[in-house]
Amino acid sequence: MTNAVTAALEYAKTHRSRFIDQLGELLAIPSVSTTPEHQADIQKAAHWVAAYLEKIGLQNVQLYPPDSHPLVYGEDLRAGPEAPTVLVYGHYDVQPADPLEKWHTDPFKPVIREGQIYARGATDNKGPFMAVLYALEAILNNGQLPVNVKVMIEGQEEIGSSALAQFIAENKKLLACDFCLNPDTGMLAPDLPTITYALRGLAYFELKVYGPAQDLHSGVFGGAVHNPAQALCELIAGMHDAHGRITLPGFYEDVRPLDEEERAELARIPFTEEMFQARTGVPQVWGEPEFTFYERITARPTLEINGLYSGFIEAGAKTVLPAYALAKISCRLVPDQDPAKIKTCLETYLSENAAATIRWELTELVHGAASISDRHSPWVRAMQKAQETVWGVRPAFKREGGSVPVVTQLQQILGVDSVNVGCALPDDNMHGPNEKMNLAVWEKSLASYIHFFYNLAGQGQAGEQVDR
Amino acid sequence: MTNAVTAALEYAKTHRSRFIDQLGELLAIPSVSTTPEHQADIQKAAHWVAAYLEKIGLQNVQLYPPDSHPLVYGEDLRAGPEAPTVLVYGHYDVQPADPLEKWHTDPFKPVIREGQIYARGATDNKGPFMAVLYALEAILNNGQLPVNVKVMIEGQEEIGSSALAQFIAENKKLLACDFCLNPDTGMLAPDLPTITYALRGLAYFELKVYGPAQDLHSGVFGGAVHNPAQALCELIAGMHDAHGRITLPGFYEDVRPLDEEERAELARIPFTEEMFQARTGVPQVWGEPEFTFYERITARPTLEINGLYSGFIEAGAKTVLPAYALAKISCRLVPDQDPAKIKTCLETYLSENAAATIRWELTELVHGAASISDRHSPWVRAMQKAQETVWGVRPAFKREGGSVPVVTQLQQILGVDSVNVGCALPDDNMHGPNEKMNLAVWEKSLASYIHFFYNLAGQGQAGEQVDR
Repeated sequence: MTNAVTAALEYAKTHRSRFIDQLGELLAIPSVSTTPEHQADIQKAAHWVAAYLEKIGLQNVQLYPPDSHPLVYGEDLRAGPEAPTVLVYGHYDVQPADPLEKWHTDPFKPVIREGQIYARGATDNKGPFMAVLYALEAILNNGQLPVNVKVMIEGQEEIGSSALAQFIAENKKLLACDFCLNPDTGMLAPDLPTITYALRGLAYFELKVYGPAQDLHSGVFGGAVHNPAQALCELIAGMHDAHGRITLPGFYEDVRPLDEEERAELARIPFTEEMFQARTGVPQVWGEPEFTFYERITARPTLEINGLYSGFIEAGAKTVLPAYALAKISCRLVPDQDPAKIKTCLETYLSENAAATIRWELTELVHGAASISDRHSPWVRAMQKAQETVWGVRPAFKREGGSVPVVTQLQQILGVDSVNVGCALPDDNMHGPNEKMNLAVWEKSLASYIHFFYNLAGQGQAGEQVDR
Repeated sequence: MTNAVTAALEYAKTHRSRFIDQLGELLAIPSVSTTPEHQADIQKAAHWVAAYLEKIGLQNVQLYPPDSHPLVYGEDLRAGPEAPTVLVYGHYDVQPADPLEKWHTDPFKPVIREGQIYARGATDNKGPFMAVLYALEAILNNGQLPVNVKVMIEGQEEIGSSALAQFIAENKKLLACDFCLNPDTGMLAPDLPTITYALRGLAYFELKVYGPAQDLHSGVFGGAVHNPAQALCELIAGMHDAHGRITLPGFYEDVRPLDEEERAELARIPFTEEMFQARTGVPQVWGEPEFTFYERITARPTLEINGLYSGFIEAGAKTVLPAYALAKISCRLVPDQDPAKIKTCLETYLSENAAATIRWELTELVHGAASISDRHSPWVRAMQKAQETVWGVRPAFKREGGSVPVVTQLQQILGVDSVNVGCALPDDNMHGPNEKMNLAVWEKSLASYIHFFYNLAGQGQAGEQVDR
């Protein structure tokens, strides 16, 4: 270890309690983005982050756009054009705290209990992104950053990062980088550092099936009308075969196959079928027999029914023959599936299978492609080495079943991979009551970011191999 | 025609406008049974009917039970034990009038416009049962009833006649009769008198399919969980084959076959597939190919989905993998299907077809058997002859797809058929805004009841053939 690394690690240790107090200040701001009444708090949090970036010495600190839900930007490019450039991502906005009655303490008055800090936003994402910024502070305090750093902390993640794609597209030069460091993903366990290298995409639809012009009396008309609720069920039932494979024509055509090396990597993840069953409470695990349950939930595309509605659903009996039935249907996508093509697959299936006795209507509500990062890139190797140094174990390489819009946006618009490494743990209650973050893991995480920035030094844009 | 018949018909003509005024009084009482705030109006209507029965000279007039929703009873048994005994059914309770804003005039201020009387309850069922009572008045005014008559006008029909079965069971002797005259069914057209000889039964269920212990994130868990909404759809889709036949094991076992004579009778009904399609607005008629559409909606059992619910059904996208899914499923039954056995059929189907990846729960909500009356009984023949006399055409013999609880209850508890002949027309807006009744048809109906009672005379309990 160089003197610089040692000094930065020492600084982080010395300032531990100030770091936590300062994080507490940020956690105390209820920067909920999902409801308009917290607009002032969103502003307050954005300005807090901007002020912090200025204080540790970043340049060109700005709020984009300065009005609602600003994105906070700051940079330090003094490492020079030969050094790699890292874009640091984070989000200062949080989910609403309700149901409030389920919190043991005030969600916006952070408290520390048994080594955990409890507050809304503790683990999603204020704690993790502040760990990256504290790592920068620790390094800057003792000298110059070994790489160029651009920091982008947004305020719309919990409402879908809807304006972010446009911002990235309009600021390609500002954000130009070699890769993004994204601390908005989780760890499998406190003692198992985790690199999330792939996220699934999403294509979300609403399907409506129409039958009679209005609700009918099921006694008077039943028997000669193709019930639209039944017709919808028939269509949905046909979307999977008996083995759980999706039947939409062409659905799997562009799926990038899993190679044996990657399957072996995923098989190392210490999450068993029994654990999955205990966690979900399902009577039995389900799905494509030729893939492990973990591959099914992370590396394979899916088609899920998210909602169903038709006719009478209150308590009791009403003999209605419904005029229509509705389903919310979404597909999780993997590389290299194209959401637009998935819509075509679904339309083709419906055209081929819907009976002439009903009419149907398909609307796309949301879409986003999957993302995958090269597990062997110099940036991933720099992170792997940093984690091995801090934890003393090889990190897990994890694919995640959900979607993180910014990762896909950066890949599609800037053409860069993300190194997704945060410290959220499975029991951190992200989005739920009593959200918390494990402070010991967070400190290790902070230390690993310090190592990571130094490991990157000398990698240049060309992406040479890191020495292991 | 005998002098007595002529005199009674003459009396009815003479008193036409007083009959309508008096019906107007009854229609002005908002005897809505479905909401508790009309309790006083229910009482008022019951007492109005009882007073009328006393006024025309019926004996033993009573309210059972005298408190809430009383059933009004009265009798005239002076024809003696050799003459047939008719139980006259009717109901004085009505549906709520809302949506009030869709009524052109006050639903409880009857008005006559273009030969139609408009009011809530006009056609369902105050007008039709008063036609029977006016027929009795017309006959009584000129002498003695040719048959024994027991009148039973209930106040709970619109809330399912829930207490009626018990009342019938506890008053078998009081209600003992040869058959029931039920004016609570409709006519196919103003110039086509109609005898409804069969009604379908009902078995109504709620099916719940359970998957994970709670709603899951469809990105994080999707692919290894058998989605309960999908599983429900798979189960429902399998309940019919590709030809619209129900697949539940044993479902059709007890269905009484339709003979050629009855099929020919049903084929006479002037309701075409084109009319059905125009009325319902369906793109195409559906169902068992070996039966006509009319047989399918009246003489064949069905399985309908009345409601579907799972997960997220609001506007927009929520990526939930639901914990459960629910369907309301009901079967219309025909003679001689047993509702209890239908539940077993459904349970067997579910046991055989539900995957081990989900759990299911089936609850029966409502049940009632189908009913069918002998089309060749002396009572039906007496009615047929009466209608032919008044309208000059042979009546249509109609099966109805819906259920009328009292008809089944009388068949099961007292062992008697019902002659179901009312004057509600398809455009009378029963249960809807601007309910009305056609006064010309109503007068013919009243006349036909007079003929009917005289035609019955001399039939005795033995049920000899009426001379045609």
